[in-house]
Amino acid sequence: MSEPADESPPDPTLPPTESGLSPSIDLRSVFLGPKGENAAVFERLLLEAFRDHVFWRRNVHPEDGFRVQEVEKRSPSYQYSISVLEQTLLSLLGELKGGVPFFSPRYIGHMTSDLTMASLIGYFATMLYNPNNVAVEGSPVTTRLELEVAEDLGAMVGYPAADRWGHLTSGGTVANFEALWVARNVKYLPIAVRWAAEELQVGGLTATSAAGSKDLGTLSLWELLNLPPRESLDLLDRLLAATEDRQAAAEAVSRHSASGMGYQSFGYRLHQHFGDALPPAVVLVPSTAHYSFEKICRALGMGGNQLVHVPVDENFRMDPAALWRILQDLAQRQQPVVAVVSVLGTTEESAVDRVDRVEELRTRAGEELGLAWHHHVDAAWGGYALSVTRDAAGRRRGFQSTLADQAPEAWPSESVYRALVAVEQTDSVTIDPHKFGFIPYPAGAVCFRDRRSRELVSVEAPYVFHSGAPDSAHLGRFILEGSKPGAAAAAVWMAHQVLPLDARGYGRLIGASSRGALALHRRLAAGDFSPFHLSLLPPPDLNIVCFAVGHPSLGTLSETNQFVHRLYQALSLSTETTATHRVERPDYFVTKTVLRAEEYGGAAVPVAARLGFDEAAYREAGGVAVLRCTVMDPFLAASRDRVDYLEGFAATLRQVMVAALATG
Amino acid sequence: MSEPADESPPDPTLPPTESGLSPSIDLRSVFLGPKGENAAVFERLLLEAFRDHVFWRRNVHPEDGFRVQEVEKRSPSYQYSISVLEQTLLSLLGELKGGVPFFSPRYIGHMTSDLTMASLIGYFATMLYNPNNVAVEGSPVTTRLELEVAEDLGAMVGYPAADRWGHLTSGGTVANFEALWVARNVKYLPIAVRWAAEELQVGGLTATSAAGSKDLGTLSLWELLNLPPRESLDLLDRLLAATEDRQAAAEAVSRHSASGMGYQSFGYRLHQHFGDALPPAVVLVPSTAHYSFEKICRALGMGGNQLVHVPVDENFRMDPAALWRILQDLAQRQQPVVAVVSVLGTTEESAVDRVDRVEELRTRAGEELGLAWHHHVDAAWGGYALSVTRDAAGRRRGFQSTLADQAPEAWPSESVYRALVAVEQTDSVTIDPHKFGFIPYPAGAVCFRDRRSRELVSVEAPYVFHSGAPDSAHLGRFILEGSKPGAAAAAVWMAHQVLPLDARGYGRLIGASSRGALALHRRLAAGDFSPFHLSLLPPPDLNIVCFAVGHPSLGTLSETNQFVHRLYQALSLSTETTATHRVERPDYFVTKTVLRAEEYGGAAVPVAARLGFDEAAYREAGGVAVLRCTVMDPFLAASRDRVDYLEGFAATLRQVMVAALATG
Repeated sequence: MSEPADESPPDPTLPPTESGLSPSIDLRSVFLGPKGENAAVFERLLLEAFRDHVFWRRNVHPEDGFRVQEVEKRSPSYQYSISVLEQTLLSLLGELKGGVPFFSPRYIGHMTSDLTMASLIGYFATMLYNPNNVAVEGSPVTTRLELEVAEDLGAMVGYPAADRWGHLTSGGTVANFEALWVARNVKYLPIAVRWAAEELQVGGLTATSAAGSKDLGTLSLWELLNLPPRESLDLLDRLLAATEDRQAAAEAVSRHSASGMGYQSFGYRLHQHFGDALPPAVVLVPSTAHYSFEKICRALGMGGNQLVHVPVDENFRMDPAALWRILQDLAQRQQPVVAVVSVLGTTEESAVDRVDRVEELRTRAGEELGLAWHHHVDAAWGGYALSVTRDAAGRRRGFQSTLADQAPEAWPSESVYRALVAVEQTDSVTIDPHKFGFIPYPAGAVCFRDRRSRELVSVEAPYVFHSGAPDSAHLGRFILEGSKPGAAAAAVWMAHQVLPLDARGYGRLIGASSRGALALHRRLAAGDFSPFHLSLLPPPDLNIVCFAVGHPSLGTLSETNQFVHRLYQALSLSTETTATHRVERPDYFVTKTVLRAEEYGGAAVPVAARLGFDEAAYREAGGVAVLRCTVMDPFLAASRDRVDYLEGFAATLRQVMVAALATG
Repeated sequence: MSEPADESPPDPTLPPTESGLSPSIDLRSVFLGPKGENAAVFERLLLEAFRDHVFWRRNVHPEDGFRVQEVEKRSPSYQYSISVLEQTLLSLLGELKGGVPFFSPRYIGHMTSDLTMASLIGYFATMLYNPNNVAVEGSPVTTRLELEVAEDLGAMVGYPAADRWGHLTSGGTVANFEALWVARNVKYLPIAVRWAAEELQVGGLTATSAAGSKDLGTLSLWELLNLPPRESLDLLDRLLAATEDRQAAAEAVSRHSASGMGYQSFGYRLHQHFGDALPPAVVLVPSTAHYSFEKICRALGMGGNQLVHVPVDENFRMDPAALWRILQDLAQRQQPVVAVVSVLGTTEESAVDRVDRVEELRTRAGEELGLAWHHHVDAAWGGYALSVTRDAAGRRRGFQSTLADQAPEAWPSESVYRALVAVEQTDSVTIDPHKFGFIPYPAGAVCFRDRRSRELVSVEAPYVFHSGAPDSAHLGRFILEGSKPGAAAAAVWMAHQVLPLDARGYGRLIGASSRGALALHRRLAAGDFSPFHLSLLPPPDLNIVCFAVGHPSLGTLSETNQFVHRLYQALSLSTETTATHRVERPDYFVTKTVLRAEEYGGAAVPVAARLGFDEAAYREAGGVAVLRCTVMDPFLAASRDRVDYLEGFAATLRQVMVAALATG
């Protein structure tokens, strides 16, 4: 096992090393620690931030008087009021102890763990100022920091520097929502441009797809709905350039757009104009995609029924062959595709879809099927893993050197590496700092390849700039949310300053977590738990280990699934426990999921098979239940202290299995 | 001027007063204070919260070892890393000083101010635990707190206790989004129920509107789209009760719903089934409504063009007569109304729409026009003002006793009072704790009258409960957002504990702020600024004072508007200043808005007229620019210290006007 924290960086008082790189951050310094090992530093910096803020207040108009006189603090009413505050805080602190110890190496449940001290202190320091990033007027500093961290993420992904744009959101759902909102509006844009061009009597616009260039007015509806996203945005630019009054032209496009008209009027007009509105446009996601995509498709008016699930393979990655068959069917039916979503780090398995393969299919589909779509990557979970592919100068690292960092573990696999580096070819990506960025909630993010696309969701007339103010002056006009905490931007900024988004920064943290997951997988695979039998999913792409558990006395898969549920109950805080305020914590925490036959299809058949149940039994039971362990802790496999948590977990698991069988 | 902080509550060591009420909180104890007057208390409680958390960590498995050994902290790598963290924090602290001093009595710009210490400390204490309120599994404590504070808000509003439901959001935009999302889905629900009943061969369902009861199968499309929201939800219940398999029936309804089918297929089927899909459904908002409603209508697929702006009167409240005329027109065209939105505290003027009048029109429209709709109140800004209408036992207080609290100021006006108490008749309301709740971002909230409506946005089959878990176990399934900070719930909870949502708690704070705004209005109205001339908007419903400024040398309204813009620049942090990192703060901070003729119509004509410009000039200039002052500070008018901020602002305003005229 390699030791992530034992690298000795050069003495910082010495000149930089020959490579010109600064020394790496000691991972021991990054978190508060399960024992509060870094509490003294944290407390010092916390007080520094607080006092610094107080002294700032006193230095803004020092001539002003005092709102609360010292003598008034002795009054019964003041004393009473402070007592209420203190007592309330003590109540809260008591309540909070009923929470989940995410900080502990023993917590291997969800994607929650100890957080970077940098982000916690940065959040608190900024919260005292309470900037609102809806508009720069109320957040002259933190709006800049937000755009800076979004730029960090876009650069890590590799979108073209001149075109990319991104911002923070409250979380991954809103980020994915925005991406599909943009995708929907870009999909229907060519129609709006055509109608606007007709209204403005602008002729001679051509549109280029894989099939060649044509006059815009001669394209069929199907062709209009299959222009590549970039071409659609170029087309808008060409229309605006061909008119004298750009603003009037932009307003005409907005008026003729699906967003402006609404689906009902837009559909009616499509029918009138083209004779046939074609079947409703679909969104393709792997069957492992987060449930919120259905929520999003319903909210956006596209319809939950238009969400098409693409089967996954036995590594729980979207199956490119299945995707191709679906695309062929859709093309044959002339059913448009708004977006294909690849998932980079599935919620249940941390599987990484082959983004590179999907991009290959995108090219091929354009050429062979005349299909075009927006390619969105839901990397809410895994986005920060892209850091392993960047060197300190921001250059892309090759597979071998990326792999060499994690030796002797073979991580990332070449498939994962290829998927990571292919994200730069896509149109948008969701990356949540509050997941693999080790940053407190709320901090999601969305990045777009082409900043022009945000004009399509802006409520202002597109391309109209305001009295010379920079276009970032009013973020709320380009995004779904309005008011939002500048403190979140500062938290992410602090973390990115301390841990850069490259192999020497976040890459080391995420590599160590993923190596820990592989070590856990190996430990469980090698363990003799007889008479119990573990059926593990394949080694994870990132940091989640899932396994089902069987026993000879459990004759059906349903019984086996119920047994797994009992194991989960023994290895989590139950809601019943917390309702009575009596906290009985298990020694280790895991979560549970069910690989449902309806969604997973054949992908989970081998998991059931290794338990001795055939596909029929799997389908009859509705799926197979698995325990799910997320390894965030970069030290899990390193045995830095007196407890070997891998062995400890294996021992606890055995105890819990024995107990659960007895009480079943 | 009454003195909000001089009430002396009884000695808390004595038994409660005869009325059984606890003493009131001393408002001097609520905030950190412009000089950090309460810094010592804040720091003590901050440290208490931090250390309490650290000791909690040490008490979870004390037998575990240490991740960071003391001796390792002496290593160069650790020392280097902590130096980076500290240096980065110092950089951030330096940057933050370029921010806006919201805490100062001199800041009367946006709805931002000093925050309650209770919420700041509660946020920080909880952030260390980092609970995620997406599901109770990761937030056993804070999900409970979230539902508790939503219940506080619902009780303050007065929705029926047995039916109401609410939750926190990242902000007002998402809250309004959810309300209209629900409204849209409830609007189309009767059609889905009818199609599901046909599929399931369930007959005999009747639907009741103002026109009487009819068999569901005989209703016209127009009638189906004009059932009252409650009746639509009852209808669903009746269908489910009439079937043996509730889950299958719920799934059938979902399959036939507009959300499930998507607008395109749904519209096509409406056309096939009813011969005519009717004109697209609209959303009515006052012309003062927040710009995000357009964003929301576009995103939801209803279309920005379907957002209908209702003119406002000279108090900037939605004009009931104009609303009625629009409703008559819509009824005549058979154009359905998804929702009417009343605004309780407009962003620009803090105007309070006559919610009571809109409710009267709702009844009348049902009876006379056969129209029904969802009534949503956007009280993002003003929601906490409802606290003045509640006594400590939660009972509704009469107008006279509500008024008596604020004597000698005549606040609230009877119109405002009637609007506040009428919110209980509506279907949903947005209330942002991070606005008039004095709580840090992010904390929005939405409350619904009828908890059943959330099933219509749930991605699970409706009415299916999971293995006995309470329905609150997985909030993320019922709302737009997924992961969200439990810390925000704790912050709101702390504040509500210290300041209850009644006249003795938040009511006193909000009353004092509003009285301050009235005092500012009076001071500006009475002031002699000649040769400058102030044209004030009417006394505010809540806490915003707006005024235009004229001068004899400014011959056109456009010139006058430009002059007001220069005043604004002199009374705010300009983005140019902050870009160069050189902070030159004005002595007072205000904001600016333009009452645009396109939106405000005749409502702003008197403002221009008082400057000497007629309606033609107003329309030619495109509107009238005003300075906008938001009073959050409960002490503004109380002259508690050596500075009289009202006089100070008047003096600064004069200086700035003279200087701006000279440089214009």
